[in-house]
Amino acid sequence: MIDFPNITDLCQSTSSKIVLLVIDGLGGLPHPDTGKSELETASMPNLDALARQSACGLTTPVMPGITPGSGPGHLALFGYDPIKYLIGRGVLEAIGIGVELKRGQVAARGNFCTLDQNGLLVDRRAGRIPTSESAPLVKLLDNIEVPGVEVSAYPVQDHRFVLVLRGEDLDERLTETDPQALGVSPLNPMAITPKAEKTAQAVREFTDRAREILAERTSANMVLLRGFSELPDLPDFGETYRLNPAAVAAYPMYRGLAHLAGMKVIPTGKSFDDELGTLEKNFDEHDFFFLHYKPADAAGEDGDFDAKVEALEYIDAQIPRLLQQDIHTLIVAGDHSTPAIMGVHSWHPVPLIVKSPITAGDGVGEFTERACANGSIGRISTVNVMTIALSHAGKLRKFGP
Amino acid sequence: MIDFPNITDLCQSTSSKIVLLVIDGLGGLPHPDTGKSELETASMPNLDALARQSACGLTTPVMPGITPGSGPGHLALFGYDPIKYLIGRGVLEAIGIGVELKRGQVAARGNFCTLDQNGLLVDRRAGRIPTSESAPLVKLLDNIEVPGVEVSAYPVQDHRFVLVLRGEDLDERLTETDPQALGVSPLNPMAITPKAEKTAQAVREFTDRAREILAERTSANMVLLRGFSELPDLPDFGETYRLNPAAVAAYPMYRGLAHLAGMKVIPTGKSFDDELGTLEKNFDEHDFFFLHYKPADAAGEDGDFDAKVEALEYIDAQIPRLLQQDIHTLIVAGDHSTPAIMGVHSWHPVPLIVKSPITAGDGVGEFTERACANGSIGRISTVNVMTIALSHAGKLRKFGP
Repeated sequence: MIDFPNITDLCQSTSSKIVLLVIDGLGGLPHPDTGKSELETASMPNLDALARQSACGLTTPVMPGITPGSGPGHLALFGYDPIKYLIGRGVLEAIGIGVELKRGQVAARGNFCTLDQNGLLVDRRAGRIPTSESAPLVKLLDNIEVPGVEVSAYPVQDHRFVLVLRGEDLDERLTETDPQALGVSPLNPMAITPKAEKTAQAVREFTDRAREILAERTSANMVLLRGFSELPDLPDFGETYRLNPAAVAAYPMYRGLAHLAGMKVIPTGKSFDDELGTLEKNFDEHDFFFLHYKPADAAGEDGDFDAKVEALEYIDAQIPRLLQQDIHTLIVAGDHSTPAIMGVHSWHPVPLIVKSPITAGDGVGEFTERACANGSIGRISTVNVMTIALSHAGKLRKFGP
Repeated sequence: MIDFPNITDLCQSTSSKIVLLVIDGLGGLPHPDTGKSELETASMPNLDALARQSACGLTTPVMPGITPGSGPGHLALFGYDPIKYLIGRGVLEAIGIGVELKRGQVAARGNFCTLDQNGLLVDRRAGRIPTSESAPLVKLLDNIEVPGVEVSAYPVQDHRFVLVLRGEDLDERLTETDPQALGVSPLNPMAITPKAEKTAQAVREFTDRAREILAERTSANMVLLRGFSELPDLPDFGETYRLNPAAVAAYPMYRGLAHLAGMKVIPTGKSFDDELGTLEKNFDEHDFFFLHYKPADAAGEDGDFDAKVEALEYIDAQIPRLLQQDIHTLIVAGDHSTPAIMGVHSWHPVPLIVKSPITAGDGVGEFTERACANGSIGRISTVNVMTIALSHAGKLRKFGP
């Protein structure tokens, strides 16, 4: 949680409702031809109007210059210090496909690779074989049995899969098997601590069996495993803030992140329209909603400036419907920037809107990076968004006498 | 380093080149007659044009209201937390005159003082005797021999000199001999820890011998020693950021600071013109250059507003030559402000330019304190400049999955 002792002591439950709308990859950069960012290019009458009635600002997800993955970006929005609470790659990949993990279980990110006849790596990603080819292979891996440990393999996409180990006395502290180089053999997983010896032994047996099973293939004839990790020990979001929180997210990864924080994850459909329907149906049941919108990030990652503009215009058009709910405090935020001209996540500060009955606008005329820089909230760490939301909603009492 | 664990894990070596141009004492304050700062007064067409194509901001070297010396100012620019990594006064004085120090050696800042016939201080600075008078006296001190420890004295300027102790089992933890008062005797240096006893004994022998040697003089007849210090234990800059860094600086102190950080210090001449020539000749050999420009600070310290304006106009005129190099990411920064109307270093935030292929300008029209305050980078701690530079240069990977 934020670097404030006993924030729970200040929290109080009230009937007011907070909605945290996360526009994934919200921030961008100017297109070289126009000098305007995606937000500046998009026609967003509703978000612009909202910005004019709100307190605005810019959020830095981790620290200046640090580009966050989805995990740190969302943990910060939920009020967890993203440097203190780390989510492993295996865990994120598992929750990204909806695999249920419990504490003490170990997940790893796996992928097929290709070895030559001497057992040396010639392609660390097996030519990115299509899911149609890899899924049956994952099924074979899933059938591997290792004494004393339940081993499961789940298909992800293309050459990628997730390996989960379940059982007693498991430990994430293993070395990876991907040597990150060609012309060498895959590495044996080694325990970094004696407590991980059983896990290392189980993984070695799994990779030995995988090698045998795949041996007759000329490509995708071995696996590499990375990011061995267990669930992080996150304080419960609802208990910490005295909230009854729910998450509405179409993508498994964001449902998984909300689940890690202890939020109730409400089943929903694949579209934002589905998400809004889910929110509406369940609105009376919770006092905090995390509502996730993915397409802006997806378009940014594709490097498709116009598609990102479109994705922003789409979410803008949904704002009037969202505002029909009796939302006391609405936060519109992003987990990080994904400038289309870069095609990847970036470190740039992300625009923020906080709308509540006490906001009357602070001179920000539109919802853009440049305009929000002049908002009354200023530039804050993303980890501080939750306390601002709670205070606006009357859920955070005075600190100190 | 910055308060981020294992930044090296995120760093990747690439061929892109970063130049960190430090304009020493860059920031200033408005002249009372014109209401314009030195930067606002200077004609700087090149830096203004650069600002228009860049991401701009303001940097706070240590924290608001704290005025940094050259040491903390530069350490922060190099990404070292200046509060955590302290450089002792003796060490800084030594590296300021180009004395080579190794770990375990102890340096102190010395100066001549004047005692009356009873051995009591009447002038702690011996009337600031000129270097022409003090240098021969320093030579006498340098000839002093102390058993088991190699003692060297180096002239600095006027009444000041540097004392360096070299040998086994030395320790910086000594009390100072300057009582900071008149009418009392110089103090005996005392060990603060038993481990410093040998050092204290050596210093006592040195000061006893100095007193004998200088006894017949009526002024400058004794020495005072302050700031006993060893080299700080700085993480290696190049290893930390996976860079092959070089420093080009005409002044010994800045070469010394770069050397402390583990940068390769390239020999150069006395002028910025020499420095540019050195940079050009060595440009292919490194992926990071620290390039130091001193005259802006010197003019500010002299309280000479016009000279500082001239110094800024001079560096502006050199920008086109600098830009002829294939610089991927150019940082123009200052280690601190030195407002001419104050005549000393100050705590005021310092303008910052970050120019890379993804910067397209953020509405900042000129390179001044007021204009940069509205830049997209906002106000950051100087210690975060390096991560921003690395990210722009594609040398910093995403944090977290």
